[in-house]
Amino acid sequence: MPVTDLQNQPARPSALDPAIAARLRRNPDGLVAAVVREHATGDVLMLAWMDDEALHRTLTSGRATYWSRSRREYWVKGATSGHHQYVRSVALDCDGDALLVTVDQVGAACHTGSRTCFNDELPVSGPEENS
Amino acid sequence: MPVTDLQNQPARPSALDPAIAARLRRNPDGLVAAVVREHATGDVLMLAWMDDEALHRTLTSGRATYWSRSRREYWVKGATSGHHQYVRSVALDCDGDALLVTVDQVGAACHTGSRTCFNDELPVSGPEENS
Repeated sequence: MPVTDLQNQPARPSALDPAIAARLRRNPDGLVAAVVREHATGDVLMLAWMDDEALHRTLTSGRATYWSRSRREYWVKGATSGHHQYVRSVALDCDGDALLVTVDQVGAACHTGSRTCFNDELPVSGPEENS
Repeated sequence: MPVTDLQNQPARPSALDPAIAARLRRNPDGLVAAVVREHATGDVLMLAWMDDEALHRTLTSGRATYWSRSRREYWVKGATSGHHQYVRSVALDCDGDALLVTVDQVGAACHTGSRTCFNDELPVSGPEENS
């Protein structure tokens, strides 16, 4: 859901197309969530974060680029590991606070060496369970 | 990336298994992101948020249940629209701040009536473009 307009500001200067920037609903840190999906398999690989400039670089360089919340810097996926993400498509969601980034993934997406970051299966039970 | 331990607290009381709760890395609002994927198609439908109790209800009721940040209440997907999400599996990511929820989706996932929330395609260009 949208945050207030007061909060919905770019955190840093960016060359992002103003028409796109105007559709973003950023969190208080100026970020939107980026769900990363592998083109070939459809698998969800990871969740990362983008500010306006990370989105601009992702859209124009062809390499998925995120904002590292811990290091507070731009992070070109694969720059260190070689596990690049070549961008196929990027879609914004209905309320402007999440992106779906479809990529060609080189090697493992996860820093643990796993192919995806979602490896910890939790137990599901309940009357509506579909098995 | 992890938030500080001081921030990483449940926002509300919950019956969530303590062993699972201990693996969550919550944002300052006590929430983790939930990427929702359709079982049959693999399509990414939406991004929502869960606190500990929403996750507990999702894991034990078989119906995807979120925390509404705008209404500040639990939100059983489909309770109003009939567009339920029957939970197939739930996986936590490597740093504990995002979930991948795989569901059987009834009807449209998006409140706009679209099948998924990610319908606003952004223009991708650049030297690494794969077309």
